[in-house]
Amino acid sequence: MSRTITITGAAGQIGYQLAFRIASGQLLGDKTKVNLKLLEINPALEALKGVAMELEDCAFKSLGEITVTDDPSLAFGDTNFAFLVGAKPRGPGMERSDLLIENAEIFSAQGKAINENANKNIKVLVVGNPANTNALIASTNAPDINPGSFNAMMRLDHNRAIAQLAKKTGIHNSEINKVAIWGNHSTTQYPDITNALIDSKKAIDILDQKWVRNEFIPRVQKRGAEIIQARGLSSAASAASAAIDHMRDWELGSSEDDWVSMAVPSDGSYGISEGIIFSYPITCKDQEYSIVQGLDLDEFSLESIKTSEQELLEEREAIKHLL
Amino acid sequence: MSRTITITGAAGQIGYQLAFRIASGQLLGDKTKVNLKLLEINPALEALKGVAMELEDCAFKSLGEITVTDDPSLAFGDTNFAFLVGAKPRGPGMERSDLLIENAEIFSAQGKAINENANKNIKVLVVGNPANTNALIASTNAPDINPGSFNAMMRLDHNRAIAQLAKKTGIHNSEINKVAIWGNHSTTQYPDITNALIDSKKAIDILDQKWVRNEFIPRVQKRGAEIIQARGLSSAASAASAAIDHMRDWELGSSEDDWVSMAVPSDGSYGISEGIIFSYPITCKDQEYSIVQGLDLDEFSLESIKTSEQELLEEREAIKHLL
Repeated sequence: MSRTITITGAAGQIGYQLAFRIASGQLLGDKTKVNLKLLEINPALEALKGVAMELEDCAFKSLGEITVTDDPSLAFGDTNFAFLVGAKPRGPGMERSDLLIENAEIFSAQGKAINENANKNIKVLVVGNPANTNALIASTNAPDINPGSFNAMMRLDHNRAIAQLAKKTGIHNSEINKVAIWGNHSTTQYPDITNALIDSKKAIDILDQKWVRNEFIPRVQKRGAEIIQARGLSSAASAASAAIDHMRDWELGSSEDDWVSMAVPSDGSYGISEGIIFSYPITCKDQEYSIVQGLDLDEFSLESIKTSEQELLEEREAIKHLL
Repeated sequence: MSRTITITGAAGQIGYQLAFRIASGQLLGDKTKVNLKLLEINPALEALKGVAMELEDCAFKSLGEITVTDDPSLAFGDTNFAFLVGAKPRGPGMERSDLLIENAEIFSAQGKAINENANKNIKVLVVGNPANTNALIASTNAPDINPGSFNAMMRLDHNRAIAQLAKKTGIHNSEINKVAIWGNHSTTQYPDITNALIDSKKAIDILDQKWVRNEFIPRVQKRGAEIIQARGLSSAASAASAAIDHMRDWELGSSEDDWVSMAVPSDGSYGISEGIIFSYPITCKDQEYSIVQGLDLDEFSLESIKTSEQELLEEREAIKHLL
């Protein structure tokens, strides 16, 4: 079996991690041959060729063809999985609305290219920020593709929340379940431990509520800034790792008795406005995701979720002329 | 089961690739929990803390404890596998002999720290250049550890040779066997296809000898420079990938009916001076490596191998006061 996988911004820091982990078989297992289509803007094509040379030089058993291009229609041709990583970062003096609009242009072009060229059952994961609204734009520009095929990445936030709980309690990551991140991949996200289990015990019975509200939640929300502070560079390896986790679980199924967090088009679940790309607790099976239903949300949770919904509605408003 | 793995120069480009691929289970499989000990020089410790934060943020199931330190005795404490990646690069105006001596100091200190602190069955892979002579120095400074536990990395050259043959013939990597790299990890290395099989046919029957001598061999020898030319940075992801390949095959066994290339202390096989860290065709089984014996070498091969041996003897001479 072979599958085609597109990575945009493939010569960047995240792409440089992602391409090698995928080519080594970590996305689809080493029995599936992967063809990689790597997209970059023209000035980065020479560096991207260097990345492709290094991919060849790994002599991976599960890597098939490599395509290097600055042409989206080529990059998305017959692709089964797309990681939309490349995005314009916020420059000096740039307003958030400028950032939204500049990225909206990139992601509307890519949505169109996906619509015209990709496999109709493509799975698209947007990693480039503002990821949720970028995913909405791409999806809107791909009318022939099921909107549910466009997700935004919240798995990094989800994994960060697990890591903080592990650190606090001394219990290993693998024994922490049912954490959820709601909302937008921004500092308004709501990391929710209401239903979380730590070593099979309810997290809310173990953890001090003050710690959860005053330390845990803001720390997860602002972890990106903390990494930049230490490394001098934004999260790359952990973002790539989360992107693989997201796509692999979506395609191959999430763990039994656990959830993941994925930003998907809201179907109105939990009263969230339909259509915005909103993060929910999710389970995956048979190549499909489902929003976990029927969770009780206390007042604090409801308020937190509404705040993040409000931000996403404002983002949509700012770019609505491109929808 | 759990194992401790040390990476030196862990905040550098190669280390940043290596740490995440190991932590995700690609070295020992996802049933073995790995504890990572990450070593850096003091000025890079803050960046290394950022790397450790990102490792936590991946919530890997197979990652145990992470240690961040600039103290070699801590970094090598009870370690089972060490990747010696950090090395001093050649600066402007620096002679090759200066480079040898500056690195000799680093690797003799690390050899002593390994001798005093590591598990006695440690496997050490030197990646930092000049890798073969650095490995010799580390080994000599670790008298209580079997010298065979110190290898230098040639797998990147080995994989590059396979990749070039795949590219030339259109046959996939996975159908190319019994390539060998002999000698030093430098431009004197000898990429040898005398016994190579391409899709089960003898490579020497398929390939034009002129192409092999005038294009294939120099290209593999100088591939590092070609990557730097394209990327503007030296090979990192492909080097990390090769390091994992080397250590995994050494520990878990190489493929049946194939060879790998590893630089190991010469036992005099093929007339090479004993003791220098020389690359041979190798098979691995039961956690041990064996040099492939009884290969016929034609005059061209013998001469090429002698040239690389000569270089390693000169390198040893340049640092012999540190042995």
